[in-house]
Amino acid sequence: MHKVRLGIVGCGIAARELHFPALVQLTDKFEITAVTSRRRERAEDFASMVKDALGYEPAVFDSYEELLESGSVDAVDLTLPIELNVPFIFKAVEKGMHVICEKPISTDVASGKKVVELSANTDKVIYIAENYRHDFRFNKIRTFIDENTIGRPIFVAWHLWIGMDKSNKYVQTEWRQRPKHIGGFLSDGGVHHIAALRVIFGDIAWVSGVTKRVSDYLGDDDTLSTVFEFNSGVVGNYTVSYAVSGKQYFEIVGTDGRIYLDEERITVRGQREETINIPNQNTFKNEFEDFYRVVKHGEPNILGHPVEALKDLSFFEAAIKSKGTRIEIEDLLRSTTPD
Amino acid sequence: MHKVRLGIVGCGIAARELHFPALVQLTDKFEITAVTSRRRERAEDFASMVKDALGYEPAVFDSYEELLESGSVDAVDLTLPIELNVPFIFKAVEKGMHVICEKPISTDVASGKKVVELSANTDKVIYIAENYRHDFRFNKIRTFIDENTIGRPIFVAWHLWIGMDKSNKYVQTEWRQRPKHIGGFLSDGGVHHIAALRVIFGDIAWVSGVTKRVSDYLGDDDTLSTVFEFNSGVVGNYTVSYAVSGKQYFEIVGTDGRIYLDEERITVRGQREETINIPNQNTFKNEFEDFYRVVKHGEPNILGHPVEALKDLSFFEAAIKSKGTRIEIEDLLRSTTPD
Repeated sequence: MHKVRLGIVGCGIAARELHFPALVQLTDKFEITAVTSRRRERAEDFASMVKDALGYEPAVFDSYEELLESGSVDAVDLTLPIELNVPFIFKAVEKGMHVICEKPISTDVASGKKVVELSANTDKVIYIAENYRHDFRFNKIRTFIDENTIGRPIFVAWHLWIGMDKSNKYVQTEWRQRPKHIGGFLSDGGVHHIAALRVIFGDIAWVSGVTKRVSDYLGDDDTLSTVFEFNSGVVGNYTVSYAVSGKQYFEIVGTDGRIYLDEERITVRGQREETINIPNQNTFKNEFEDFYRVVKHGEPNILGHPVEALKDLSFFEAAIKSKGTRIEIEDLLRSTTPD
Repeated sequence: MHKVRLGIVGCGIAARELHFPALVQLTDKFEITAVTSRRRERAEDFASMVKDALGYEPAVFDSYEELLESGSVDAVDLTLPIELNVPFIFKAVEKGMHVICEKPISTDVASGKKVVELSANTDKVIYIAENYRHDFRFNKIRTFIDENTIGRPIFVAWHLWIGMDKSNKYVQTEWRQRPKHIGGFLSDGGVHHIAALRVIFGDIAWVSGVTKRVSDYLGDDDTLSTVFEFNSGVVGNYTVSYAVSGKQYFEIVGTDGRIYLDEERITVRGQREETINIPNQNTFKNEFEDFYRVVKHGEPNILGHPVEALKDLSFFEAAIKSKGTRIEIEDLLRSTTPD
C-alpha cells in the first residue's frame, strides 16, 4: 500500500475549501479513509463530498478518539480551532499516527514549544501545514536575491489591508470571534506573511510593533505595524490590518534594485529587469506532496517542521507583547516555558 | 522703513540656492544689507550676486560680530554648519537682532532646548526656517483629512530613497562629512519629513527605530526605519535611506479611503476621488513672508517657533537612540538637560 490513509479531523473552511481540493489532485498519494467533526452532520457532509469527488466514502467517526483507535488511518489532517491543535497533535502521536496540522502551530509560544519538544522525541511526523512556504512567489523572489539581481538587500516593506466585513466566513467562525490564541486574526492570518518573509530572508532577530483595534467585530486587536530586523541585517516594516481593505504594498529594496510583488506579478528592477506573471498554483497540493515525501520516503521534514511554524508564531507574540519595545525572537523562544 | 534689513550669515548652498531666490521675489519686504562668510571671497561673490539680481550691493563683513555691530541689519539669516546655529542665534539676540535660521534647530535636543528657552525670554523673533511647514502638499493633505475624505486616518507610510552619490554637493560639504550633529543626513534631511507629517497629524508620541550604514561616504548611519505613533493614535512607518535612491512611497490609510503623494500629485481615493497636481511653489518664499509677518506685524510665531523645530529634531534623536526600543518624545524633551 503506497497511499497514506488519511483521517480528516475537523470539517471547517480549511478542510473543505483548502485541503480537500488539493487532496482531490493527489489520489495516488492519499486516501481519505476517515473523517470526524464536533458535529457529526458536518463529517457526514464531508464524507459525501469525498464520495462525489473520488467515488469512495470515508468512515465517519463520532469522536477523534474513535477515529484514532479505528486502525483505518496512518495519519491525521488536523483543521481545528487553534486551541485544539496541541492536545490533538499529542493524542495522534500517542496513538502512533503521523500528523499534518493546519497553521498556526498553537495558541502561543509556550504551547507551541511542547509540539517542538514532542517532535524531537517521536519517530512520527508532525508536519505544520504552512502553504506560503510552498508558494512560487516567495521562493522565486529568494532566487532573484540569491542571484544578486538587486545587489545587497537592505529593506523590505509589506503592508497588507485585508479588511474583513462582518459577513466574512472567517469572521463568522465562532472560535475566531472569541479567540483563545494570541493576536486573533493578526497571528492566524499573519503567520503566512512571516513564513513568506522568512522564505526570502531567513530568521528574524527582533521586532518592535504596535497593535490597534480599528473595528469592533474582529474579536481582538486587528491592526499591527512593526519595524524588525532579520539576522542578516535586512530591516523590515510589516503592517497589516484586518479591519481596513485595499491594495497591498510589497517592496524589497536592494543596493542595486527593487523587487515588487502584487496580486498578478513579480517585478524586478535591478541588474536585469524582469516581470513574472504568477502562475496558477495550488500551494496546498505542494504541501501535501511534501508531507507525503516526508512520511513515505523518509525525507527530512524541513518546510513543515514545528520549529518553523513556532518561529512564525513567535514573531506575532513578540510584536504584540513589545508595545514598541523590541523583543528578541531568540529570547522569547528560549525564555518561554512550555505550559 | 517697511523693509527688514537682513544680514546673510553663511554663503553656502542654502543661502545661495534656497534663500536667495526667495528673497529676490520679496524685494518689498527684505533688503539684503549685509553679508558675511567664513571665507570673505564667498561673501563677496554673494554680494555680487545680489547686485546683479537686485541692483544694490550689500556690505561685506569679515566677521559675524562686525556684521552684528554694524547697525546695518534688523535681522540675520543664518545658513550655517548646524553646530554653529545655537551660538550664532544667541549672539544675534544678545545684540538685539531678529533671527531666521535654517533647520535643523541644532545638533541635538540638549542644545536645541537652549534656543527654546532663549525664545521664551526675549522679544526678538527666533524663527527656525522649515519650509515643509509652508508646503502646499502637506497642508492640502491635512485639509483632505480634516474634511473626512478618507474617514478616520489610521496609518501613514513614508519610505524615501534619497540616494546621494559621492559627487553630490551636500555630500561634498565638509561639515556634513564629519557631522557634529546627531544622525548626519538622517536628521539634517529628515526634519523636513517629520515636519511634514506633523503638519498633517500633529505631534508624535513615541518612536522605535533602527539605523544602518549602507554607504561608506555619508559620514554616519544613512538609513533609518521606524514605527511610531502620533498622539492622535495614528501609527506610522517612516523609512529613509540616503545611500539608496529610488521612487518614494507615501500613503495614508483611513477607514474609508487613501491618500497617495508622489512627485507630481496628490491622489485621494475615498468619499470622493480627486487628483491634484502639485502647483509650482516656492516654499522658502512662503517662509520668509511668514517671518516678515512675525517681525513686522507682530503676528505669533507659529510655524517658525523653535519648539516646533525641536520636536522635529527630537524624533530623530529618539529614533536613533531607541535601537528598536521605543522612546517617548515628551520624555526625551523633558529629561534632556540643556547643555
